[in-house]
Amino acid sequence: MKEGIDLWVSENFNDVYRMNYRVKETLYSKESDFQKIDVVNTEHLGKVLFNDGLLMTSERDEFVYHEMITHVPMSAHPNPKKVLIIGGGDGGTAREVLKYESVEKVVMVEIDPCVIEACKKHLNVTACELDNPKLELRIEDGLKYVKETEDFFDVVLIDSTDPIGPAAPLFNIEFYTDVHSIMTENGIVVSQCENPFLAGEMQKKLLSIKAELFDKVSIYNYSNITYPGGLWSFSFASKTQDPLLDAKNLPDAIAKDLKYYNRGVHKAAFALPQFQKNEVQEFIK
Amino acid sequence: MKEGIDLWVSENFNDVYRMNYRVKETLYSKESDFQKIDVVNTEHLGKVLFNDGLLMTSERDEFVYHEMITHVPMSAHPNPKKVLIIGGGDGGTAREVLKYESVEKVVMVEIDPCVIEACKKHLNVTACELDNPKLELRIEDGLKYVKETEDFFDVVLIDSTDPIGPAAPLFNIEFYTDVHSIMTENGIVVSQCENPFLAGEMQKKLLSIKAELFDKVSIYNYSNITYPGGLWSFSFASKTQDPLLDAKNLPDAIAKDLKYYNRGVHKAAFALPQFQKNEVQEFIK
Repeated sequence: MKEGIDLWVSENFNDVYRMNYRVKETLYSKESDFQKIDVVNTEHLGKVLFNDGLLMTSERDEFVYHEMITHVPMSAHPNPKKVLIIGGGDGGTAREVLKYESVEKVVMVEIDPCVIEACKKHLNVTACELDNPKLELRIEDGLKYVKETEDFFDVVLIDSTDPIGPAAPLFNIEFYTDVHSIMTENGIVVSQCENPFLAGEMQKKLLSIKAELFDKVSIYNYSNITYPGGLWSFSFASKTQDPLLDAKNLPDAIAKDLKYYNRGVHKAAFALPQFQKNEVQEFIK
Repeated sequence: MKEGIDLWVSENFNDVYRMNYRVKETLYSKESDFQKIDVVNTEHLGKVLFNDGLLMTSERDEFVYHEMITHVPMSAHPNPKKVLIIGGGDGGTAREVLKYESVEKVVMVEIDPCVIEACKKHLNVTACELDNPKLELRIEDGLKYVKETEDFFDVVLIDSTDPIGPAAPLFNIEFYTDVHSIMTENGIVVSQCENPFLAGEMQKKLLSIKAELFDKVSIYNYSNITYPGGLWSFSFASKTQDPLLDAKNLPDAIAKDLKYYNRGVHKAAFALPQFQKNEVQEFIK
């Protein structure tokens, strides 16, 4: 076998930390209207999606993020029928939501059609349900959608990138005020909420916004291989539902194929490390 | 200010993944009889200790590892008086153990005096209790010590590097048979146990060894910034003590200054992700 080039792709964190992955091949690269999108096949993580150079999801461990953003709120809602996903263009969250028989309709609002295109072409593990007839896929701005829609939702999942670039306005109170107004009585909203070690201030900001609007607010953690800094979080908010007291066991038909989430992990995810608890506990209720 | 060189230090994982840290200054570098030891001051993690190029501990988040290796077993033992630490040359584990008033004696057996030297010079956050009069610091092979000592211990902490290089024999049944023989009736042994995503086979091997020797065996997880792959584990074994049923709350005097460990984190750490549970549950008892 001939030697090829020694090809690596790099994710840069604040110009003080870089994660480099040995590349098998580059599969997709496009400058969309919103961001630079790349799909790269790596030795360590399999196929990987980058938005503006930030690693969004990988074949090897996408299940962690997608199971945890989905099954915590879905199990805490008594009967989720209508689900809204903001972002989530790789399709992994929709795939998990569509496992529930109770779900009648999923609206997914992704701002960037190139994310959909890249994942449909190259990340079938997440994109596999994007043609499901229960899914209404809208290519538009999530902010605009939540302001204008006349639909109401039982579960809203903010499956966004980091609070820079196109996702930045998704971390503001104006957006969550609109989200609150389109949620049903028992509605739950869960949002990607960064890393407690590296983004404590952002976590406090997002929880303080939710605490102004909702009666039930909390934050829960998970760990995967790909995101920098070990522990990552989702924030939870609801008008009525408590994610610990009101959560049910998942139906066996769903639970048996999951790789990360289970009932023990659900409860454990809300047990915050002391430093994080000290930071956010004033907003938890 | 003049521009200096653009200096980075790199940790290499299986030649498919590299974590690179921007360097402020290199502080220590020595080829010992056992390994290459470096202390580097980084922008991202503060001062960092490398053994053979693997990142062992960092100023920024050493508290996670050291609190979790220590307080889980210490709280599960009814009255820990004598504690043995194998490895642990940076001193962080000894620092945590010495917080307990019940502790009369800590024996720490570190094979490499250069680790001690490097940390005493440059990592005071972990090395701060290495001159504590309750600590007997022995520079020798941990394998030989556990084979020959006539002492008995309430808690044994295997604070080792990865199962390559000088620590490799610490992952074998011969070693744990000797450890078992120097443990008191309620004795507990906890061992550094790698990453469930990346080292599932090693976790199974270590748990199978413990399951042959002990009546109580389990594994628990934590997440820090520095170790590759998010989730890392410690394995727990005891002749009598169950880490969930028998664990007490820590004394307030200890708990109030901890940054990661608390009672909720203790319980949550044993809730394994489903893929890990599937791998190891045959050994848990």
